[in-house]
Amino acid sequence: MDTHNDAELTLAEARRRKFLIQAGVTVGSLAVATTLPGISHARSEHSMSTQHHSPAVGGFWPGDIRLVISISMQFEAGGQPPKGTDSPFPKVDFPAGVPSDPATNTWFAYGYREGIPRMLDLWDRHGVKVTSHMIGEAAKKHPDLAKAIVERGHEAAGHGPRWSSEYAMSRDEEKQFIAEGTRMVEEVTGQRPTGYNCNWLRRGPNTLSLLQELGYTYHIDDISRDEPFIEQVNGKDFVVVPYTLRNNDILLVEGRNYSPDKFLAQIKRDFDELYREAGTRRRMMSISAHDRISGSPQMVSAWDEFIHYAKSKAGVAFMRKDEIARFALHSPLTLRESETI
Amino acid sequence: MDTHNDAELTLAEARRRKFLIQAGVTVGSLAVATTLPGISHARSEHSMSTQHHSPAVGGFWPGDIRLVISISMQFEAGGQPPKGTDSPFPKVDFPAGVPSDPATNTWFAYGYREGIPRMLDLWDRHGVKVTSHMIGEAAKKHPDLAKAIVERGHEAAGHGPRWSSEYAMSRDEEKQFIAEGTRMVEEVTGQRPTGYNCNWLRRGPNTLSLLQELGYTYHIDDISRDEPFIEQVNGKDFVVVPYTLRNNDILLVEGRNYSPDKFLAQIKRDFDELYREAGTRRRMMSISAHDRISGSPQMVSAWDEFIHYAKSKAGVAFMRKDEIARFALHSPLTLRESETI
Amino acid sequence: MDTHNDAELTLAEARRRKFLIQAGVTVGSLAVATTLPGISHARSEHSMSTQHHSPAVGGFWPGDIRLVISISMQFEAGGQPPKGTDSPFPKVDFPAGVPSDPATNTWFAYGYREGIPRMLDLWDRHGVKVTSHMIGEAAKKHPDLAKAIVERGHEAAGHGPRWSSEYAMSRDEEKQFIAEGTRMVEEVTGQRPTGYNCNWLRRGPNTLSLLQELGYTYHIDDISRDEPFIEQVNGKDFVVVPYTLRNNDILLVEGRNYSPDKFLAQIKRDFDELYREAGTRRRMMSISAHDRISGSPQMVSAWDEFIHYAKSKAGVAFMRKDEIARFALHSPLTLRESETI
Amino acid sequence: MDTHNDAELTLAEARRRKFLIQAGVTVGSLAVATTLPGISHARSEHSMSTQHHSPAVGGFWPGDIRLVISISMQFEAGGQPPKGTDSPFPKVDFPAGVPSDPATNTWFAYGYREGIPRMLDLWDRHGVKVTSHMIGEAAKKHPDLAKAIVERGHEAAGHGPRWSSEYAMSRDEEKQFIAEGTRMVEEVTGQRPTGYNCNWLRRGPNTLSLLQELGYTYHIDDISRDEPFIEQVNGKDFVVVPYTLRNNDILLVEGRNYSPDKFLAQIKRDFDELYREAGTRRRMMSISAHDRISGSPQMVSAWDEFIHYAKSKAGVAFMRKDEIARFALHSPLTLRESETI
Repeated sequence: MDTHNDAELTLAEARRRKFLIQAGVTVGSLAVATTLPGISHARSEHSMSTQHHSPAVGGFWPGDIRLVISISMQFEAGGQPPKGTDSPFPKVDFPAGVPSDPATNTWFAYGYREGIPRMLDLWDRHGVKVTSHMIGEAAKKHPDLAKAIVERGHEAAGHGPRWSSEYAMSRDEEKQFIAEGTRMVEEVTGQRPTGYNCNWLRRGPNTLSLLQELGYTYHIDDISRDEPFIEQVNGKDFVVVPYTLRNNDILLVEGRNYSPDKFLAQIKRDFDELYREAGTRRRMMSISAHDRISGSPQMVSAWDEFIHYAKSKAGVAFMRKDEIARFALHSPLTLRESETI
Repeated sequence: MDTHNDAELTLAEARRRKFLIQAGVTVGSLAVATTLPGISHARSEHSMSTQHHSPAVGGFWPGDIRLVISISMQFEAGGQPPKGTDSPFPKVDFPAGVPSDPATNTWFAYGYREGIPRMLDLWDRHGVKVTSHMIGEAAKKHPDLAKAIVERGHEAAGHGPRWSSEYAMSRDEEKQFIAEGTRMVEEVTGQRPTGYNCNWLRRGPNTLSLLQELGYTYHIDDISRDEPFIEQVNGKDFVVVPYTLRNNDILLVEGRNYSPDKFLAQIKRDFDELYREAGTRRRMMSISAHDRISGSPQMVSAWDEFIHYAKSKAGVAFMRKDEIARFALHSPLTLRESETI
Repeated sequence: MDTHNDAELTLAEARRRKFLIQAGVTVGSLAVATTLPGISHARSEHSMSTQHHSPAVGGFWPGDIRLVISISMQFEAGGQPPKGTDSPFPKVDFPAGVPSDPATNTWFAYGYREGIPRMLDLWDRHGVKVTSHMIGEAAKKHPDLAKAIVERGHEAAGHGPRWSSEYAMSRDEEKQFIAEGTRMVEEVTGQRPTGYNCNWLRRGPNTLSLLQELGYTYHIDDISRDEPFIEQVNGKDFVVVPYTLRNNDILLVEGRNYSPDKFLAQIKRDFDELYREAGTRRRMMSISAHDRISGSPQMVSAWDEFIHYAKSKAGVAFMRKDEIARFALHSPLTLRESETI
Repeated sequence: MDTHNDAELTLAEARRRKFLIQAGVTVGSLAVATTLPGISHARSEHSMSTQHHSPAVGGFWPGDIRLVISISMQFEAGGQPPKGTDSPFPKVDFPAGVPSDPATNTWFAYGYREGIPRMLDLWDRHGVKVTSHMIGEAAKKHPDLAKAIVERGHEAAGHGPRWSSEYAMSRDEEKQFIAEGTRMVEEVTGQRPTGYNCNWLRRGPNTLSLLQELGYTYHIDDISRDEPFIEQVNGKDFVVVPYTLRNNDILLVEGRNYSPDKFLAQIKRDFDELYREAGTRRRMMSISAHDRISGSPQMVSAWDEFIHYAKSKAGVAFMRKDEIARFALHSPLTLRESETI
């Protein structure tokens, strides 16, 4: 059964304290994060709420942090195939001579023309740093936008060079595929991705092994937990920073039957329960924002309301997934999963 | 017509009073349940609301109970086929060489890693006992979790050894199938199931007959009433403890277009009307909670709010389905259905 | 263009006043309805709200009535085919040897076991009379329930002997089909239907002609207006009492993604606007209630709230469709449609 | 990246001021619009809210206008094919001998019988002028209604002679198609359309070129921005007045799972964020209203509430798309898009 029992917690707590002391961390204070690379944003006045003091946090995250929120911002617009892509438009069969589907492509274009710029302003207003999963070709087509994302403090993560089904590739094909996407993002942004997200989360039997070979330290294509954990890949530690479907704009709104209020209501409920649980164990909340969906005015309005709400609670921090992965890798409290899924 | 007329009620009332006296029951008091096996939980301070006195309850349930709520908690995660299962992910055709669909399997894994542990804590906080429908293979893969469910006072009910369409089996195949699932749950939990639930409620022409042969006393694959009733199976009484689609998380949220607030609003409305009706006839409310769906933070938050609400009304009790079946089998007020569906 | 201009209204008003005087009607008083057959229920204390006086009603309906609400209650449960029917359950292919789908059939059985009895009690509590569209076989299987509907003051209307696609029948086949359904309802209830509703509203090219030949005076398979109107069928007047999809429980909740609160909110909005409009022209609001859907506790709770709300406004009357048709047939204000759809 | 940087804004601002002075416009006053053809409605007391003064508007629109709202009202009812059209009814296969689907056609008929008349009254009550996208055959079948739309101050825009897939036509076929639809609308209304909307927004590779050849000045089949912009078509300026899916009644309600409250909540949210943004850049909000969907009482009630809300904010104007296109064509601040989608 996957719960900590008391004995385990006591042992883990002892190891954690030792680790934190070695790392120069002062438990229960904001001084912690300075000595851990990548958690710097958690110290920011804007990204962590400090209005109320939170005395009883168990030290599951650095410093005073009680609950970590991790936001994914997909940068996919422009990287979609020219026709036949999923969108709110009805499916039609295009004659072979029709080269593209402009209607759908303008739906995607909203992502780079309005969506990401609007979200970048939102994150800035709140001092929130996010993880941007970048399709290589999307970044290549709009390099200034990709660069702006990184320059404004966000993480550039891998998402493949284009939309393709990795699970159906041979090992060699997939290796080239991942490497190509990695190179594209690095060339455009100057930042080498350390985290990965497959198309629709659908990895194949070789994906994790290849990611580790290619220098990745974590992946997100797992929705089984509300906290980061460690799996063995190629005999070494590899971090899972779990993703989400339940707090995922693309599943909740799908372009059709759109409801920002519904989205807002349920991420607030999710937050409430995780915040409660975070008093006694490590908890992380994942939320995702696709360029062309969460970038609309009505969705940004809902996101804004959510961030205000979350920041009104003591000890809430927004962290990039690379920061979370680095912290999890070194924390003695991190769950270690022996099961392979 | 399926309503009690006054004459019937008077007769039934006379029989009921006689039965209750024989059973040592004091009508209108909490002393009742001690003498009826399996209704013990209804006496618990936590599972039955006693804040307000409910003077006019008609004795349709033991003691002061006015309305019974029965919660089903599916334990299916880990028992799903390795690929091709229904989930919020889009359907794809996996090449034959791809052994499994990790993305979907991590969605299911959420059920045993986070969902059931979180729900068990919720039930404990409220003193609520539920019926857990266990897929045999799910229980076998996570025996500690299956055992914890029973040890914390919940019912282990049969749900087949794996996901399969019983309606399409021969009588012999189906007999082996049910027996295998029964054995698996008993081996893991030490509790022999007495109630049964087919995959998607879809029983075949031999299912009920086989269940009775194999020692089951009730099934739930019927959504035609808001109270338990008795059918003749193999010439003997067999109890139906009706299940629900309208208060069923899997139909309401489906993983997509998730809305815990919608779920909460409608189970509250259902409760309100059944509670009203329960003043003059026997009423039971059924609600279901799937491991990977109702086990999310946002759904547990909604469930928590519902249970608080229900418990604020006098005479509301949460009962396991085996308790309900045993009570219904001996109560002279139980409806007897001659029609075969 | 389909709006009254002032000149037409003036002319129509003159004709209306003459008609009302001939009919012995006192405009603006409750005395009216007594002299018009079939509007008797509108006089009931319960079915028409008289809390507030409504001085400026234009006489578009009898007496003080400002807005008419017409409720359809489908009685279909028990009349469905044994397998393969639409329901909230996933579609499956049953082997030929499997005679029926018990899961789906218990979903339908809810309609006669709980749904209609619960709705009948609701209508009685409010003094509301409705139109019940009866599948012949459903009425035959549960004759006591069908009789109770009529005995409690509701209208038995035709809905075919069983679920079948009239649009695909020859004229002779369809004639037999309609006649058979008519006979079944009359035999069971003693009431000969005068109104008709095709399966899923889908009439064929001969339907209206046949209905008139067979003695029907109105049909509802038209959703193009918010008031009754007259079409020429076989060269004679035939009334359309429009039905609805937008206030139709089966389209709004479909058994899945159920939301009684959503249903309630939108019928209240529909009412608000129609009530406003009803101050200056004839307006009718149609709402439908299927046995197995609107008959649930949560939906009856929503209906109850709506009826309370509607009755709190002056001049709101609930009328059966046969009453509406008879009134429309004789009222000089009734729209006459030359277009054939 | 598609955001204005400061330098660009300063340059653009200088050009804008020069343009406005040349055009006789007084920045920050209502006197502006008189000298710009087609923006006259923005001056109307009813269509622009002047309750509160808005001191800091950046002059992105004429005069005191801070945010422009553009409403599309589709006039399609009556122009649909006789059977097989999308509607809330379940799809069925009609036998070849069945000439039409009356049920679906009465659903469409609601659009011209109730929907558009009701919406015209709504627009009049608020002094709002809209753009009506007219299917040629719909206008031909109900010429009085088409004329009334134009006579009441609304724009008649092109939408094809009938429902057809322009993307699959040859250049010649499509040219005839567009020309035919243009002619039909002009013949009926006396107004030659200058704006165009393809069926389901799905233009083909020749559409824009043909539209410019045929005298059109703008199209709306692009959902990539929240403001008008200019593209090069046939080497000349052509305006895009972006349309919307997220504020589109047909995608949000689809005839099924209808929810006017959901629609209202999200267009209010969209408005809130665009209104905020409109303080520092040009913003336009597009909303669409289909005859048979937004024309229902419940949807008109929601629209009414939205318009009241929008008009309560200072500087909100409702403009026709032809007015917007003319203004955008001459404004130095208008974005110019080099990319071809």
